[in-house]
Amino acid sequence: MQIGVCYYPEQWPRTMWADDARRMAELGISHVRIAEFAWSRMEPRAGEYDWTWLDDAIETLAAQGLKIVLGTPTASPPKWLVERDPEMLPVRADGTRWNYGSRRHYDIASETYRKECIRITKAMAQRYGRHPAVVAWQTDNELGCHDTVPSYSPAAQRRFQAWLQQRHGSVESLNTAWGNVFWSMEYPAFESIGLPMLTPTDANPSHLLDFRRYMSDEVASFHREQADVLRRHAPGVDVLHNFMGFFTTFDHYRFAADKAIDVATWDSYPIARTEVIGLPEADKARYARTAHPDVSAFDHDRYRAIGGGRFWVMEQQAGPVNWAPWNPVPAPGMVRLWAYEAFAHGAELVSYFRWRQCPYAQEQMHSGLNLPNNELSPGGKEVARAAQEIAQSEVLRTLAAPVRAPVALVFDYETQWMFEIQRHGAGFDYQTLAFEYYRALREQGLDIDIVSRHADLSHYRLVVVPSLAVIDDAFVDQIERSDAQWVFGPRSGSRTADFAIPGTLPPGALQRVLPLQVLEVESLRPTLAPALSVGDVHGTALHWREHVRANPGAHVHAEFADGWAALLSHGRVHYVAAWLTHDLHRTVLSDAARAAGLTLQSLPEGLRLARRGGLTFAFNFGEARAIAPAPANAQFVLGEASLGTGDVCAWRDPQ
Amino acid sequence: MQIGVCYYPEQWPRTMWADDARRMAELGISHVRIAEFAWSRMEPRAGEYDWTWLDDAIETLAAQGLKIVLGTPTASPPKWLVERDPEMLPVRADGTRWNYGSRRHYDIASETYRKECIRITKAMAQRYGRHPAVVAWQTDNELGCHDTVPSYSPAAQRRFQAWLQQRHGSVESLNTAWGNVFWSMEYPAFESIGLPMLTPTDANPSHLLDFRRYMSDEVASFHREQADVLRRHAPGVDVLHNFMGFFTTFDHYRFAADKAIDVATWDSYPIARTEVIGLPEADKARYARTAHPDVSAFDHDRYRAIGGGRFWVMEQQAGPVNWAPWNPVPAPGMVRLWAYEAFAHGAELVSYFRWRQCPYAQEQMHSGLNLPNNELSPGGKEVARAAQEIAQSEVLRTLAAPVRAPVALVFDYETQWMFEIQRHGAGFDYQTLAFEYYRALREQGLDIDIVSRHADLSHYRLVVVPSLAVIDDAFVDQIERSDAQWVFGPRSGSRTADFAIPGTLPPGALQRVLPLQVLEVESLRPTLAPALSVGDVHGTALHWREHVRANPGAHVHAEFADGWAALLSHGRVHYVAAWLTHDLHRTVLSDAARAAGLTLQSLPEGLRLARRGGLTFAFNFGEARAIAPAPANAQFVLGEASLGTGDVCAWRDPQ
Amino acid sequence: MQIGVCYYPEQWPRTMWADDARRMAELGISHVRIAEFAWSRMEPRAGEYDWTWLDDAIETLAAQGLKIVLGTPTASPPKWLVERDPEMLPVRADGTRWNYGSRRHYDIASETYRKECIRITKAMAQRYGRHPAVVAWQTDNELGCHDTVPSYSPAAQRRFQAWLQQRHGSVESLNTAWGNVFWSMEYPAFESIGLPMLTPTDANPSHLLDFRRYMSDEVASFHREQADVLRRHAPGVDVLHNFMGFFTTFDHYRFAADKAIDVATWDSYPIARTEVIGLPEADKARYARTAHPDVSAFDHDRYRAIGGGRFWVMEQQAGPVNWAPWNPVPAPGMVRLWAYEAFAHGAELVSYFRWRQCPYAQEQMHSGLNLPNNELSPGGKEVARAAQEIAQSEVLRTLAAPVRAPVALVFDYETQWMFEIQRHGAGFDYQTLAFEYYRALREQGLDIDIVSRHADLSHYRLVVVPSLAVIDDAFVDQIERSDAQWVFGPRSGSRTADFAIPGTLPPGALQRVLPLQVLEVESLRPTLAPALSVGDVHGTALHWREHVRANPGAHVHAEFADGWAALLSHGRVHYVAAWLTHDLHRTVLSDAARAAGLTLQSLPEGLRLARRGGLTFAFNFGEARAIAPAPANAQFVLGEASLGTGDVCAWRDPQ
Repeated sequence: MQIGVCYYPEQWPRTMWADDARRMAELGISHVRIAEFAWSRMEPRAGEYDWTWLDDAIETLAAQGLKIVLGTPTASPPKWLVERDPEMLPVRADGTRWNYGSRRHYDIASETYRKECIRITKAMAQRYGRHPAVVAWQTDNELGCHDTVPSYSPAAQRRFQAWLQQRHGSVESLNTAWGNVFWSMEYPAFESIGLPMLTPTDANPSHLLDFRRYMSDEVASFHREQADVLRRHAPGVDVLHNFMGFFTTFDHYRFAADKAIDVATWDSYPIARTEVIGLPEADKARYARTAHPDVSAFDHDRYRAIGGGRFWVMEQQAGPVNWAPWNPVPAPGMVRLWAYEAFAHGAELVSYFRWRQCPYAQEQMHSGLNLPNNELSPGGKEVARAAQEIAQSEVLRTLAAPVRAPVALVFDYETQWMFEIQRHGAGFDYQTLAFEYYRALREQGLDIDIVSRHADLSHYRLVVVPSLAVIDDAFVDQIERSDAQWVFGPRSGSRTADFAIPGTLPPGALQRVLPLQVLEVESLRPTLAPALSVGDVHGTALHWREHVRANPGAHVHAEFADGWAALLSHGRVHYVAAWLTHDLHRTVLSDAARAAGLTLQSLPEGLRLARRGGLTFAFNFGEARAIAPAPANAQFVLGEASLGTGDVCAWRDPQ
Repeated sequence: MQIGVCYYPEQWPRTMWADDARRMAELGISHVRIAEFAWSRMEPRAGEYDWTWLDDAIETLAAQGLKIVLGTPTASPPKWLVERDPEMLPVRADGTRWNYGSRRHYDIASETYRKECIRITKAMAQRYGRHPAVVAWQTDNELGCHDTVPSYSPAAQRRFQAWLQQRHGSVESLNTAWGNVFWSMEYPAFESIGLPMLTPTDANPSHLLDFRRYMSDEVASFHREQADVLRRHAPGVDVLHNFMGFFTTFDHYRFAADKAIDVATWDSYPIARTEVIGLPEADKARYARTAHPDVSAFDHDRYRAIGGGRFWVMEQQAGPVNWAPWNPVPAPGMVRLWAYEAFAHGAELVSYFRWRQCPYAQEQMHSGLNLPNNELSPGGKEVARAAQEIAQSEVLRTLAAPVRAPVALVFDYETQWMFEIQRHGAGFDYQTLAFEYYRALREQGLDIDIVSRHADLSHYRLVVVPSLAVIDDAFVDQIERSDAQWVFGPRSGSRTADFAIPGTLPPGALQRVLPLQVLEVESLRPTLAPALSVGDVHGTALHWREHVRANPGAHVHAEFADGWAALLSHGRVHYVAAWLTHDLHRTVLSDAARAAGLTLQSLPEGLRLARRGGLTFAFNFGEARAIAPAPANAQFVLGEASLGTGDVCAWRDPQ
Repeated sequence: MQIGVCYYPEQWPRTMWADDARRMAELGISHVRIAEFAWSRMEPRAGEYDWTWLDDAIETLAAQGLKIVLGTPTASPPKWLVERDPEMLPVRADGTRWNYGSRRHYDIASETYRKECIRITKAMAQRYGRHPAVVAWQTDNELGCHDTVPSYSPAAQRRFQAWLQQRHGSVESLNTAWGNVFWSMEYPAFESIGLPMLTPTDANPSHLLDFRRYMSDEVASFHREQADVLRRHAPGVDVLHNFMGFFTTFDHYRFAADKAIDVATWDSYPIARTEVIGLPEADKARYARTAHPDVSAFDHDRYRAIGGGRFWVMEQQAGPVNWAPWNPVPAPGMVRLWAYEAFAHGAELVSYFRWRQCPYAQEQMHSGLNLPNNELSPGGKEVARAAQEIAQSEVLRTLAAPVRAPVALVFDYETQWMFEIQRHGAGFDYQTLAFEYYRALREQGLDIDIVSRHADLSHYRLVVVPSLAVIDDAFVDQIERSDAQWVFGPRSGSRTADFAIPGTLPPGALQRVLPLQVLEVESLRPTLAPALSVGDVHGTALHWREHVRANPGAHVHAEFADGWAALLSHGRVHYVAAWLTHDLHRTVLSDAARAAGLTLQSLPEGLRLARRGGLTFAFNFGEARAIAPAPANAQFVLGEASLGTGDVCAWRDPQ
């Protein structure tokens, strides 16, 4: 349980640095991330490096015992570089070229720019790679932010064509895989294939899917080019990238594969996130000052998997931010609570953004641990309290890493892309459905691992698959080998890897263990809400429903009022034929969890639990005071069972 | 009463073709449309034709006695053609060029592409023009779909300038006709006239109107170029084009003039259409699974006129589709009902889209008569039932063509363009108003002919003109010669052919028979709803109201609460000075119908009637069971009087 | 109190001109504005002037004693000019060039076009500058209309760079002022600085602010170039420009500085304005036919300041217009009422748009004093009545100019730009807040001067500052010297002139007289409404709230339910820490007004008062009849105390 901060010495007079470092250490901060936007100061003119200021900053921080995370500055190429190669600017989907003047103004497909990135990374790594205070390196920052990954440049087209050749071998294979006979879309050669932009109507979904796969691979290779340099010149320290919340532009599992990163780090801005994601309006209203209780937990659990068990919060909200439609001040206590929440889900480090609010430029309305006048902000005071609590508690300081949870939730990036390409109904969003399932499980006190479809699922007792577009035989093999309960949501197994409907109808290969076929599907306008009951819980489908035929061996547990099957099972494998209202999701998942032998807890509105290292943490995101379900003789190491809004407690169960 | 299907042999293994043909014939299908997207297979490389597969497909189908409709493949030019002439890609209103990768990626003004279309049409027609199984030819497909008619290319500008020269003679005449003295918009020469795009504020409405007329003529001439080839090389068979529903981009009457087509065919996708047109939300909710009861009928009646009495449904919805915001499964019975509805309105053929759902590419979520696994879909089973019923009924098989209806509704494409160019109020849409009037008449059991303003209207008993922007003396002559009741809606006679307000004020020449003047007009925000009563029916204006002065001879039948005239008459000619709430529209039209001596029937919600060949058909689109108003001793040839949702019946009145 | 009209002789046959002039004079019109869109008639081909028609038009009008306002025609450059220099067309923010075909199709940064404007202005001024009937000259028309000021052309970039050099001296100073170290945005030279367009995420707010300042100065210099010509060739007559309502694209105070204009004139279209501005929907519904009672008054009071005391309405709504989403006919009486309203606020002249509705081109749905058939329109009849009333009343004819009001409301254009660049919350609009404050004061019968932050404020008794982004020492000096009550709204003093947060925190220099600091701010989603009471008036914050610390000496008058200060004072200086619901705004301002010794009147809904030359005018914009608060023995010079909707009265208080 360590606390960090993001700091930009280049933005402040040197006279402030020593005092800043001293106050950081005093506050209980152990790690400081610096330098990730400072290219124009490291290299003010082409080839003219100026390291003196950065040397000083590092020494000043190190002198206070602070550990340094150094960022490569490639998210903000300087003006002189753009002037030398204007083609490095990315191109929008309408063919317009983006311009200099903010950040992330580079085409990830530009080979010139990639060379420049390797050069500056090497220069930094050669200078600081073996500095004892530099404990980790971050490549770039928030790859894909501001929707900058898709570039429609000539460079991207060339690299996409090469990628396609690699994947499909011959253009005939590609034409077959994509079904290009449809609408005479057949290509004579890889060189003829354009980017899927500016088509009068929908482009071929297979074309779009391969473009998304290509882009995802581009992001990974962009990182790897820097990571390779860092491994060489900065041996033995952590290499990482800083990811974002609810962000699915690239496949994070593939990105992280083959030890491309040592630890996954991400940005936790739960209040703004709650405002912008697809939650019901009532939830946005209820949790406007606390954030939805599952919104950061969802990504904590996701990035724990991506980091192979190791994750940090690199940027933690420290007060109001500047980028949502509305930006309220968090409820008192939340800035502290979010730190404990991250730790309870397994974070090694929670690093706040940023040390001091910057009074100028684009983020001047983004708070920090200090106000622009350098007094500690309300959020800063909460962090000081948390740091002190941890320092004073041996138990908290030395908490063991989290172990495997009893429940796995499969989250799949390709499924997100496929269902974005083909929503079919205006309200259908896969990540939102996955979050719905996650939330229904968390409301009942369960700890969850979020995992890839390629993960080893053999040790879980309940495996939840909100949907999984492509189900291959290897995945079904895992089901056959497992003795867990398996719950599959709608659209599971509905596509082949080439984006076609399986010849045996959905759910494709899943029929090996679940004998049913999806005959027709429908997307539902809000007024069209097929009713059903599961036990004594009543509700409806929303967004999506399937007309499913139960084949011999399948058991129908619940039907819609019009007679179509809603819940079907074969042994331990269950299928939910629609997106259901929340209470029904909770019922379906509870039933499966109980069948798996798990113990459920009925938590008050807004209360959540998380377990780590023998402790149970409880967090109150709700408006009302709530009592954490600690056993009578629980040993509290933090707080107490009665929790006001924004309060947290932690206890050890009696032996 | 014949049933057809759309089929794409190129999308399936040849091994399936014979079985497909056999099953089609078995199902009762008589016609099969093929080939309209298969250019890349007919001519895989420039000038290298491959007809073998198409020969085989035709022979395979013909061997089962199936009649073939051949489509020219010009809606989807192949990639090699686009590469030879990238200028054939169309240009958007913002100057960006559209790209290859879907369909309809051609500039209708490209003379190079037009030559290519003639060439491929000629090649097809020479090969198959005299094949005994090929009974009809379709040019291109859905001209104008995806908003692809307006092209803002240099080619379009040149052709527009030539078109203007043809229309106006001299640029001085054009400057006068358009009123270009306004804002110094005077042009020195035709070559100076640009396309109406990217103007800082509104372009001159006359400029916009002439551009729409030009585009409409371009669509017609594009078709005619192919039709001429087909007439020459495929003599004696039907030439047609496949139009769309609620589609007004070009003037279909002008398109069809001079026997440019032998039969009008169109696409009937009533559920998606109901979702996307300007209906009240309550109607969209009520009819989400049956489609609004008038939505397809409106186009059946419209295309019957356009085809000079002959029309087909070329693509009939066979289950859920893929292109509306939400795509529900139709209520049971609807796929069958829609076939009878089309026949009752005069269709010779109802052809379903498509034989089998295609598992790949853009339309994979569009259902067909067979599922991707080749079993009959729910819709396919309903079609089989209808085909069997027809086969077993001498009366249905040999139904006479429809005769003239007692009511004419004038629908005018130029009026649509003028009021789109100049809505004046956010809620005003002419086609929606025309549909309102149509619906009010149909709810009372009336059969309707939808006609052009140039049609001979002398034999109707009631002529309804929801609006007609330009009323010329020839039209008023028809009124004077007729003894029908005439009802005119708001904005009638409000413009000259050059898009100016008539010098005598609206309704212009109509004042010859209706002595009134429109002094001022107002568009109404939803909260502004001038109240009025007609008899004991109360309601309001919505969207639009006029301040009308009754001149000597005009009689005011109803007034708004603030004293302005709402309904005025002079003899048999009536004027409605506002868009009214639905009950008022129904009252006004009922009164006129009764004055015309017509018998009205008060039908239950969702029930509709249509008469053909001595039979009365009744259709239940409503949620509740309804009783068709058959006389006590009616002779039923289909079903019975009591109709559940999706049911249909037909009877012969006792002699 | 004089009445004018806008007239376009070039749009009508010459045979009508004499009769038009005669009828204008007869109606009581004294002034006619002509020629401002007639360039293509003055100079049909490059260098070929045709003045004969304009000579005739001027003589025809002058012969009836009409005074002429001549407009330079630069708002609509002719086609031949655009063809000679296509680079004069402006460029949109996405880099697309606008096109010819409407109006305002010029790049204000085009030096070629500026020369052409000087040339045509000189040609006109040389010919008519000393004509006795020409009493005023208008430059261009509605500069900035249709959002045409921002041009993103290469010319604009060059001029912006020069402007920046002028402002900042060195690029190092600019980099510091903008905080370009943030995100490596540092520029090596002025020539490297682009326009703030097409950045992947937000451009630097300082960059955006300087671009807005630059554009504002461009507008002013464009006017001045013409004004200089006019001063030289048309000495002794009024030079003016015609501004728009609720329009903040440029700083009108700076525009008017140094006698750049003699009188401010503006366009009053209150009904359409009410529809399009950010009013609550209930207000839009209530005032759909009368316009909101403060919407024109707000700009009357604003332009009175901009004109240095002298203002005209150059275009007054005469009936329904054509440019709002909905365009209702005004309630009877309003066309007359608006004239008196303008006079009561100090207008010298109210000129109606336009003499006769033009039956063709873009504004054919815009009414005038005559219908297209040349009979007087309903609005025309109301104007005739008003003209007659004034002609018959010595008191009205000779009304003295208005004197200083007791209340000043500071309105600041730069504040608008800064809070547009940085709304921070979706609902925050500074002008709307200013209008809220204005309305709250006007509802209580107060007369208001709207003033610049640079104005001399020493003689007011109440100074209201809805917000003022930058508060400098000079402004605080005025507070210290004044003995008025001062009310400051939220975000006051929240920025430096370079767009940074003050180092002492907001409200910056205002802390000299008001010892408080804004620690954090929050923007509020509609569901987040912190409650508070002021006295017995209850309400909430909306859009915006601040967390304020009262420093020693500050008094907290009201708190939010969660304990944060809502209203704070130090002596006569008050701070409102949130955007409040309307009743609370009214309470806060009433309290301050009473403290300032002002008398308030509680007016019925929709009633407003205005005082000029010893008279009090009362206007009823409400739905119900209302009684004007005239003293018992008031001497009425117009109407009577009981006012129906659209009625006006005026009285002299007893001595």
